[in-house]
Amino acid sequence: MSDVNKVVLAYSGGLDTSVIVRWLQETYQCEVVTFTADIGQGEEVEPARAKAEALGVKEIYIDDLREEFVRDFVYPMFRANAIYEGEYLLGTSIARPLIAKRLIEIANETGADAISHGATGKGNDQVRFELGAYSLKPGIKVIAPWREWDLTSRETLMAYCEKHNIPVDFSNKKKKSPYSMDANLLHISYEGGNLEDPYWEPEEDMWRWSVSPEAAPDQPTYIELGYRNGDPVTLNGEELSPATMLATLNKIAGANGIGRLDLVENRYVGMKSRGCYETPGGTVMMRAHRAIESITLDREAAHLKDELMPRYAKLVYNGYWFSPERRMLQAAIDESQAFVNGTVRLKLYKGNVVVVGRKSDNSLFDEAIATFEDDAGAYNQKDAEGFIKLNALRLRIAANKGRSQL
Amino acid sequence: MSDVNKVVLAYSGGLDTSVIVRWLQETYQCEVVTFTADIGQGEEVEPARAKAEALGVKEIYIDDLREEFVRDFVYPMFRANAIYEGEYLLGTSIARPLIAKRLIEIANETGADAISHGATGKGNDQVRFELGAYSLKPGIKVIAPWREWDLTSRETLMAYCEKHNIPVDFSNKKKKSPYSMDANLLHISYEGGNLEDPYWEPEEDMWRWSVSPEAAPDQPTYIELGYRNGDPVTLNGEELSPATMLATLNKIAGANGIGRLDLVENRYVGMKSRGCYETPGGTVMMRAHRAIESITLDREAAHLKDELMPRYAKLVYNGYWFSPERRMLQAAIDESQAFVNGTVRLKLYKGNVVVVGRKSDNSLFDEAIATFEDDAGAYNQKDAEGFIKLNALRLRIAANKGRSQL
Amino acid sequence: MSDVNKVVLAYSGGLDTSVIVRWLQETYQCEVVTFTADIGQGEEVEPARAKAEALGVKEIYIDDLREEFVRDFVYPMFRANAIYEGEYLLGTSIARPLIAKRLIEIANETGADAISHGATGKGNDQVRFELGAYSLKPGIKVIAPWREWDLTSRETLMAYCEKHNIPVDFSNKKKKSPYSMDANLLHISYEGGNLEDPYWEPEEDMWRWSVSPEAAPDQPTYIELGYRNGDPVTLNGEELSPATMLATLNKIAGANGIGRLDLVENRYVGMKSRGCYETPGGTVMMRAHRAIESITLDREAAHLKDELMPRYAKLVYNGYWFSPERRMLQAAIDESQAFVNGTVRLKLYKGNVVVVGRKSDNSLFDEAIATFEDDAGAYNQKDAEGFIKLNALRLRIAANKGRSQL
Amino acid sequence: MSDVNKVVLAYSGGLDTSVIVRWLQETYQCEVVTFTADIGQGEEVEPARAKAEALGVKEIYIDDLREEFVRDFVYPMFRANAIYEGEYLLGTSIARPLIAKRLIEIANETGADAISHGATGKGNDQVRFELGAYSLKPGIKVIAPWREWDLTSRETLMAYCEKHNIPVDFSNKKKKSPYSMDANLLHISYEGGNLEDPYWEPEEDMWRWSVSPEAAPDQPTYIELGYRNGDPVTLNGEELSPATMLATLNKIAGANGIGRLDLVENRYVGMKSRGCYETPGGTVMMRAHRAIESITLDREAAHLKDELMPRYAKLVYNGYWFSPERRMLQAAIDESQAFVNGTVRLKLYKGNVVVVGRKSDNSLFDEAIATFEDDAGAYNQKDAEGFIKLNALRLRIAANKGRSQL
Repeated sequence: MSDVNKVVLAYSGGLDTSVIVRWLQETYQCEVVTFTADIGQGEEVEPARAKAEALGVKEIYIDDLREEFVRDFVYPMFRANAIYEGEYLLGTSIARPLIAKRLIEIANETGADAISHGATGKGNDQVRFELGAYSLKPGIKVIAPWREWDLTSRETLMAYCEKHNIPVDFSNKKKKSPYSMDANLLHISYEGGNLEDPYWEPEEDMWRWSVSPEAAPDQPTYIELGYRNGDPVTLNGEELSPATMLATLNKIAGANGIGRLDLVENRYVGMKSRGCYETPGGTVMMRAHRAIESITLDREAAHLKDELMPRYAKLVYNGYWFSPERRMLQAAIDESQAFVNGTVRLKLYKGNVVVVGRKSDNSLFDEAIATFEDDAGAYNQKDAEGFIKLNALRLRIAANKGRSQL
Repeated sequence: MSDVNKVVLAYSGGLDTSVIVRWLQETYQCEVVTFTADIGQGEEVEPARAKAEALGVKEIYIDDLREEFVRDFVYPMFRANAIYEGEYLLGTSIARPLIAKRLIEIANETGADAISHGATGKGNDQVRFELGAYSLKPGIKVIAPWREWDLTSRETLMAYCEKHNIPVDFSNKKKKSPYSMDANLLHISYEGGNLEDPYWEPEEDMWRWSVSPEAAPDQPTYIELGYRNGDPVTLNGEELSPATMLATLNKIAGANGIGRLDLVENRYVGMKSRGCYETPGGTVMMRAHRAIESITLDREAAHLKDELMPRYAKLVYNGYWFSPERRMLQAAIDESQAFVNGTVRLKLYKGNVVVVGRKSDNSLFDEAIATFEDDAGAYNQKDAEGFIKLNALRLRIAANKGRSQL
Repeated sequence: MSDVNKVVLAYSGGLDTSVIVRWLQETYQCEVVTFTADIGQGEEVEPARAKAEALGVKEIYIDDLREEFVRDFVYPMFRANAIYEGEYLLGTSIARPLIAKRLIEIANETGADAISHGATGKGNDQVRFELGAYSLKPGIKVIAPWREWDLTSRETLMAYCEKHNIPVDFSNKKKKSPYSMDANLLHISYEGGNLEDPYWEPEEDMWRWSVSPEAAPDQPTYIELGYRNGDPVTLNGEELSPATMLATLNKIAGANGIGRLDLVENRYVGMKSRGCYETPGGTVMMRAHRAIESITLDREAAHLKDELMPRYAKLVYNGYWFSPERRMLQAAIDESQAFVNGTVRLKLYKGNVVVVGRKSDNSLFDEAIATFEDDAGAYNQKDAEGFIKLNALRLRIAANKGRSQL
Repeated sequence: MSDVNKVVLAYSGGLDTSVIVRWLQETYQCEVVTFTADIGQGEEVEPARAKAEALGVKEIYIDDLREEFVRDFVYPMFRANAIYEGEYLLGTSIARPLIAKRLIEIANETGADAISHGATGKGNDQVRFELGAYSLKPGIKVIAPWREWDLTSRETLMAYCEKHNIPVDFSNKKKKSPYSMDANLLHISYEGGNLEDPYWEPEEDMWRWSVSPEAAPDQPTYIELGYRNGDPVTLNGEELSPATMLATLNKIAGANGIGRLDLVENRYVGMKSRGCYETPGGTVMMRAHRAIESITLDREAAHLKDELMPRYAKLVYNGYWFSPERRMLQAAIDESQAFVNGTVRLKLYKGNVVVVGRKSDNSLFDEAIATFEDDAGAYNQKDAEGFIKLNALRLRIAANKGRSQL
């Protein structure tokens, strides 16, 4: 196994990836480069430096990727109104290609011949990391310790720590939760533990990013989101950078009990799994984007987007961000967003996101035509007869030939 | 215009359709048959009899279509998870083909050669009525007074009433609202008036079927919905007929502030229009159906349904219920529902519908495989490597040939 | 009807459109501007000038649009591999938006307030002209004489000619055929006459652009087409402009009996119609484009294109070239063509187009991997097991739960 | 490896699978059951009995599956007009699920705990066999010797034969070809050898099932195919069973130089591969089915089929015949075929399949409406104006707001 000289590891600073550092050093007799990213998970990333150093790591990368994450990954995805399986806003999925991209960039910079990650062999994340990596650097070697080693129980892992002098307080505090969690600026997720029974309702204190609707304020919060080319750029009139926008929305929406989701989803590797998610800001952005599109997007463009969306969402979920087919869909989606400009007014109240107003200089809503009142000839009702008659023609011919549609 | 001998009119008993009765009699010198249906709009239909009699109508049909409506139209549509433009649950759309079907049946029974309705020339309903009618009886003549007459203002209409002795208290009380409304067991809708400004937030007393989230109880309501072949058949363990199910869910969900929607939608006739909707029971059913599918439906079947859904919804919205293409899609959807059986537990609270549990004898959720704990060999993590490698192969080859996916 | 001051007419110089010139002058008391385009229909366009002058037309436009037609309409469409209803290469459909665009440009230049065309009220072309025109200039008035006048038989038309001194030898010679024909650089079409019986085989002398396979040479012709970004740019090594390319391919392919098609298609206006088409060069280009894509396009990009194609073809057929949804699809398609470069070798023989070779510097065909021989480790066959196992997982779980797929 | 007691092998009687018999016996110390099917590959299957006996096999299955193959696999697939990547008629793909099904049935009958096949680890067939098997019997063990053993060159294989006394004249004569071939009633395929250069034109004597167009008769052959519910049931008026139909069409079409195809396709396992195919009867059936559909199928049903088709074809190609999603699509397709009845007349000539007539009692072609002549009011041309106006409305509104579609 000495064919690996240097490996770049996606390193959280937590216990599991600290074990991986040591295991890689031991197993592959190779140098380990750690890479720790701030993508808005809500924890300090700087402490990872000391931990990596303590493990003998010489090349340590710690990056703030928050703006890039929201600008180049979250925003393009929200232009697509992407929802997986009718519910899931793809919070974990969309962060993985960015990590993969950075791993490869660092591998190129440091001359590493392999990358490694802490995702298990049962989940989607291994797929997303590795597809991204292979797409960007086809000859890269990927080491997935969870698929290789035999440290598959807490006990064997602890024994390994003891044997190799890995301080157990490396253990990420977050991990004291009985759930497996993942967080970034877009969401935090919970899996495992009692959630493995899909009939079990999670206890209130599992949730970390939002108050319950019950505990939310009795007064609604009104906000105004300003859109430009399909992206939210102002909040209550103030221009915000992508990461600041999402962070701010998370705070406001979370405080109003917004963004919790509890579902059973289908993993790419073939099994169903239960997940709980908090996506406060994303939940607001999803509704707001549809609202601004509702007045600015052409009908057939909107319908085409709706028909392409499940496919786009599936690509992101399955890890095909860096693929020709995702780029094709993105090209179509982005083409549609040139006039998706304007303002959406929203009411946030105890878990509810209510669209209460939308306006735009590019609005296609034409009051003069839509009105129930006299429209001064803007629309000729008699046109409807011909419209219906010709749309019915094929159905009438079929009925004339004796075909029943009952 | 004397080529019409008898016309069947979709008659609400309200002022507009009462004027139409007289106008048809005058304009076409023909006999008018009235047809009034109870589809759960929440108003007595029997009073329509006296009103029709007063207008000289001899053949009067008053039908209770509630069970047929929910069983044969609403339930099949919910199997598809049909949502138009990401939001609208198609409450008005799905009732129209049933009315069209009954109009044609009555035309056949009474020997009528025409049908008529009170829908305007700007809306979707004319299309839905007429496509349905033509599909079921291709030679039928359709009379759409709003596209023909000149009674286009309230004043001319009132003058016509006075001249023709039509009592203005025929006027449906509902119409005292400033909004144009439509209701059936699935929903009530509001259009027109101030809603024609999409930046205007509707006042609280517009809404009729639900309390506001603010006014809803401070305690959540938990319910259990039992599914069979994709349809909800029990509520809290009690078997309910389709119409009773929906009526009961409307009551419970409406009392918890659930089911309001405010949107701008794209009409088939080419314009955007603002609509507000209350769909309390339907909102619950939509979430519940997806939840029971989440544990019982195969992944690829679910994804195929998701990709077909926008198209199905568009067909229903545009009035193509009685069409070969809707039947094809329905065949695919129904094929998928054989194992969609089980129970969903829901928490209803101040506008929120939260899925808190799902279970089924047909569950495909396999705890033994999904678990984060030791799975006793149910799943071989090493398989993931080959899975990823071959899925990545085309991307690696492309990258090897110098193609970048950035 | 005096609200029209000046109308731009798509004028062929033939009898029908000559009658329209006079009829417009008479009926609308307006000035008529004629526009005659060379889009490769194979007839002189200059003679239209004298005819128009004889009818008193003062502003006469005669344009050679052949290069624009192929470059901006035919080539983008062929990038999509667009085929309507499995067979039709959209020869007529793709020319109409260009005519519409020119009509509007001329209306803008001449200050005309209306356009007119000679398409009937039963066909697709009226829709294509008018949708294009409305999309480019929403306030334009469209006059479609065939939907308005009563000159609906040859007799009434001839009587009108006599009365208005329109020389009947204006009659386009082409029209001596019993068929209604339309031609441009991409194809020639035949409709009407005996073709209205779909069981009737057209006689050999109907066809004008190709010899029959029987009459084609006994020796095959080999050609090489060079592609750049999805467009054919060289023929047998020689760079050719778009129009020259198509004209040359028409000649070569037509001489080899290639490109005839006889079908029943579904018109947008609701009826089925029989059409026969000759598309010699297009038939070659379609096969060749797929062939060059077969080695240069990523699998999923190719499959996405295949799934979008019917929709794209339908948009072109129905006249929605100048629409947001066609532009979205085009953006996706064009995104995919960056590496569609290389050479296709074809054998043309008695109606057959046989792809006999393809090569490209951007080829993704990797002999080292595909080989049945020893691949020196380029592909690890053991990966296939994991690939299959995980792809099968959902099916196995379902089967374990007793579901049968038989 | 002693956990396998009995394995059912898909046994051709050729050298490779004979080696596999011995290798399984040796490697797994298990009993081997052979299964040899006649699916129309054009070779005797009975000789496989003696060969299996010579290898010590006690349970030998030899089945004639030709009718089941065409009736239950080929015909349903042709109802879908399934073509993979625009060209390939799926001849190999569609036979694999039937073999998988029979392997599992025999495993159930004989109490075997494993199945085995001779497909390599690079191809699609391993996937098709194994997905089918797992879907029908999730606990089955699959042994794929080509992924396991080290007999990866001709030399090592021959050495194994010598060592284990396997007579080399077991070698299938067909294998003397330099190509890897596969045949069944639908097609014969060629891969490998010189074909691995996609710019190389195959030599004439590679092809086995058809004469070249050059060598085909100078006189065309006319045939009439009668359809019932989308399936061909009569040839020139004579009722033929599915297998007889296909066999007869193969003969007629092959004699006329029809059905050759040379392409580069994308395998499910991620690589491109060159394949040549002869599908004489299938090529005729594809054109004929589309022709009968062209007059009997509703437009929107036809378009829906066209949009679903690439997905259906991909499922078949990738091996998902026994899957919920293929069944859903089949349900939609079969729903559409109830009226696909009638007769298609075809002219076969030197590689060309020309549709020259179609007729049906269920025809939706309505000459009275389609005619260029006076239609006696069957169609009101004035309806077209309203049809166009409303279809253009959204485009006009957008243009009015300054959006350009150029």
